Amino acid sequence: MTDQSLVANSGADHPAGAKSATTNEEGRGGRRGRGGAETRRAARRGGAREQLGQILRKIPCFEVMNVEALEIIEHNADTVLEEVGLEFRGDAEALQLWKDAGCDVQGERVHFPRGLCRELVTENAPQSFTQHARNPERSVQIGGDATVFAPVYGPPFVSDLDQGRRYGTIADFQNFVKLAYMAPAMHHSGGTVCEPVDVPVNKRHLDMLYAHMRYSDKAFMGSVTAPERAEDAVAMAKILFGEDFVRDNTVMISLINANSPMVWDDTMVGALKVYARNNQAVICTPFILAGAMAPCTVAGTMTQTLAESLAGMALAQLVRPGAPVVLGSFASSMSMQSGAPTFGTPEPAMVLYGMGQLARRLGVPFRSGGGLCGSKAVDAQSAYETANTLLPTLLGGVNFVLHGAGWLEGGLVSSYEKFMLDADQLTMLQAMANGVDMSENGQAMDAIREVGPGKHFLGCSHTQANFQTAFWRSSLADNNSYEQWESEGGLNAAQRANKQWKDWLAAYEAPAIDPGVDEALLAFIAEKKAAVPDAFT
Amino acid sequence: MTDQSLVANSGADHPAGAKSATTNEEGRGGRRGRGGAETRRAARRGGAREQLGQILRKIPCFEVMNVEALEIIEHNADTVLEEVGLEFRGDAEALQLWKDAGCDVQGERVHFPRGLCRELVTENAPQSFTQHARNPERSVQIGGDATVFAPVYGPPFVSDLDQGRRYGTIADFQNFVKLAYMAPAMHHSGGTVCEPVDVPVNKRHLDMLYAHMRYSDKAFMGSVTAPERAEDAVAMAKILFGEDFVRDNTVMISLINANSPMVWDDTMVGALKVYARNNQAVICTPFILAGAMAPCTVAGTMTQTLAESLAGMALAQLVRPGAPVVLGSFASSMSMQSGAPTFGTPEPAMVLYGMGQLARRLGVPFRSGGGLCGSKAVDAQSAYETANTLLPTLLGGVNFVLHGAGWLEGGLVSSYEKFMLDADQLTMLQAMANGVDMSENGQAMDAIREVGPGKHFLGCSHTQANFQTAFWRSSLADNNSYEQWESEGGLNAAQRANKQWKDWLAAYEAPAIDPGVDEALLAFIAEKKAAVPDAFT
Repeated sequence: MTDQSLVANSGADHPAGAKSATTNEEGRGGRRGRGGAETRRAARRGGAREQLGQILRKIPCFEVMNVEALEIIEHNADTVLEEVGLEFRGDAEALQLWKDAGCDVQGERVHFPRGLCRELVTENAPQSFTQHARNPERSVQIGGDATVFAPVYGPPFVSDLDQGRRYGTIADFQNFVKLAYMAPAMHHSGGTVCEPVDVPVNKRHLDMLYAHMRYSDKAFMGSVTAPERAEDAVAMAKILFGEDFVRDNTVMISLINANSPMVWDDTMVGALKVYARNNQAVICTPFILAGAMAPCTVAGTMTQTLAESLAGMALAQLVRPGAPVVLGSFASSMSMQSGAPTFGTPEPAMVLYGMGQLARRLGVPFRSGGGLCGSKAVDAQSAYETANTLLPTLLGGVNFVLHGAGWLEGGLVSSYEKFMLDADQLTMLQAMANGVDMSENGQAMDAIREVGPGKHFLGCSHTQANFQTAFWRSSLADNNSYEQWESEGGLNAAQRANKQWKDWLAAYEAPAIDPGVDEALLAFIAEKKAAVPDAFT
Repeated sequence: MTDQSLVANSGADHPAGAKSATTNEEGRGGRRGRGGAETRRAARRGGAREQLGQILRKIPCFEVMNVEALEIIEHNADTVLEEVGLEFRGDAEALQLWKDAGCDVQGERVHFPRGLCRELVTENAPQSFTQHARNPERSVQIGGDATVFAPVYGPPFVSDLDQGRRYGTIADFQNFVKLAYMAPAMHHSGGTVCEPVDVPVNKRHLDMLYAHMRYSDKAFMGSVTAPERAEDAVAMAKILFGEDFVRDNTVMISLINANSPMVWDDTMVGALKVYARNNQAVICTPFILAGAMAPCTVAGTMTQTLAESLAGMALAQLVRPGAPVVLGSFASSMSMQSGAPTFGTPEPAMVLYGMGQLARRLGVPFRSGGGLCGSKAVDAQSAYETANTLLPTLLGGVNFVLHGAGWLEGGLVSSYEKFMLDADQLTMLQAMANGVDMSENGQAMDAIREVGPGKHFLGCSHTQANFQTAFWRSSLADNNSYEQWESEGGLNAAQRANKQWKDWLAAYEAPAIDPGVDEALLAFIAEKKAAVPDAFT
């Protein structure tokens, strides 16, 4: 059913980590020529920019908490699980699983014996796993020293400088998938890159999944808006990857949000169970507006996040021991005047650093971060706030980074220009992850000896040998003189990004796919769509 | 000569660190009411915003290098000092000092015995010192866990949204001094906040120093453009602080840049000698465009920075053992296509992190960082790049932060709007420096118990007790809904900053000064100005 040269189930396993490690050794920035097969393939594809492969960190993690503080949070999280308990609403199977595991279940409230959730996770869940892409070179390692960037997830609106702010459509959705496919440091195709509100709500997951499968060859996320849609995602993945391959490998990762505080609802738990049962990965994320859905303190938010995520990850282990899970944390601060979420603030950054430490202690991959902001415009506010989240994302050792590019207006908008600017920043973070080159060439003592006092290094042999790869280079920053910049129209960064996304989309070429697979996917979708009437709510 | 209630020489010593520590305990963000004498004073002054006091870090430093790598850099720096040597141009006294210290001096080239510079610094220079301000509450600790933010230094141009880009004037200079005086997290008045090019070049240092002394009560920097101007700075400081006080205390810090690679010139060394002789602090900074003035690698740039700064700091110890010195590092990457400096890139961030580690190993205060960018506009580029330098500034443990606010266009422009946006970000960093509150209130277990599953935290007693101080709040970010933002004009961040600096300047009131001191300063300036004809080059 599948073209053996293009899809993942080509007979051999393909450990993504090892491949990516090689990639990472070879190229450290968006500009370096790779040479060989990869370049030729990229050239054939036309649209695809040179791809960097996922990050394998060579720098340490920034750790804001000491061990004593971490132990307090862990103790408190266990107290929440034991004393307060969590509610699992509308899912009798989940309640029964908890009861069988030894929990005290009162109605929908589950009280967990101290340590139970942690034990279920540490004894069963993998510390790291491979999420396979249909192009084996795009498979990614989730966990360990790896960092994987994925695009923005969830906005109902899109915006660009030409058409302004509007509801997202499936055409916009496809555009963002294409841009993510082309972006060198976007390691993942993501999930709901925007809501395609022109497609019926009960059918759009089919078109969204198809867009990821057809217009990109990177790994992607599954649908979570209903258990049956998760089943559709698994079914489509089986068409794309082959049934056997999906049974034995993880080819999807899906975002399972807690309904904080301390509630898991039936929709999310239903999707979690589908994916866990199929050995597909779930990210258990308390999505927290601190002050409303958790205490208005960093430590309190961390405690609740840990408790809620632990319960979600543990449930996945009860469904299928060994199911790949990710500890997710999304915390925004809040304007205590207006109730609006605020981004780029210090408190969420500290939650991120601390939760990263807690995830590493637990031994599971960690999801957080991204390029978050509350700004309505692609302006200085959007960039300060985004950078204040993106840099902690790298330094805090996040493994899976949702919202890596394109997020605007508190997640209500997928912005085309912001996507390009953020994607450019991701290549910067990728270069930073390589740390300091302490090789003899990196030490450059010969250069210092050759040049000596009062001379310059521009012409010395060391500079000549290294100048093409010496520094990370932005594809959107303007570093020309004021006069030159002005003579070229005095464009600001958003205006330059506007040109870039149009250039990229114009150059886009879809990755090849086996026509039989494509037909089978389209037939599946057509059948599913015909089976039920459209629904828009 | 001085009003005892307002200036620093009020009889008693005033250890700034201790005072600031108290301040820091009391208030963690720009919004918290302080109460008591401070608030009353602020109210009296009208213009002055509530001041936060310098940062005393409660978070660890991010360390990108391991010990082995640091030792290699230190070894290599000593090799540069020994084998290659540094040139001290046009300063016979400096050469004689080096000869007397045991160096091999060939013409102007000095070869240093391995370890000599390090020994001179570690055995003599203070690990940390107080720079006194005329308002004792504004005195700052330079070194240790303290971080002090100072404004942009050096741009010949200024810009704002109304008048665009133009040469700086003394009126602009005074405006930036006033804004820095009012900014809550600007702990220092800085130095050349812009070049007042309407004042003769041989006299402008007098007007610049006066502006800092008269329009602010924060600590400030001395003139370095000629040794005799450094003498003028010392003379004016003696008028302001009293002769005895200046003899025994550090009241100025000055920026002494190496002429990289591996040259110290007579102007800078001349100024260094004046300040060191007078026990005033000098920051010995190799100002490096990597690839031109140092090797195009992070490790090579660090090696050369360490060697050059060590020699400068050691010379200050030869001039006066114990003279307060600061290890300075300013490194930008470079567009290897155009030769333009580039900012917000990963390589300078890594130089910053590594040099911070080297400074701490050496046991001297560290200067680096700030809000650097290459953008011509106050746009997303400016903010990404700035944040990519500002955040490492905090995480890397920089003690003295020049260019904390206002820097635009590679340092060619002091921007009014950028100043306000950056100053806002500095208050964010100040909040972040406080780390995670692990008190019982911070842990918020009572809140979690009180609220329970499915409820919200907005109304709970813990939130009520904490909401005013729970989260850092930007004074410039807009977190309102799209509709509200649009109805208010849809202003971008630069436009909001434009309004803010005008509001601040309109509200500005100068801090009180003893009329006798003011007269004496003005008389000194008048006499100096009358003594020589104007020069504009």
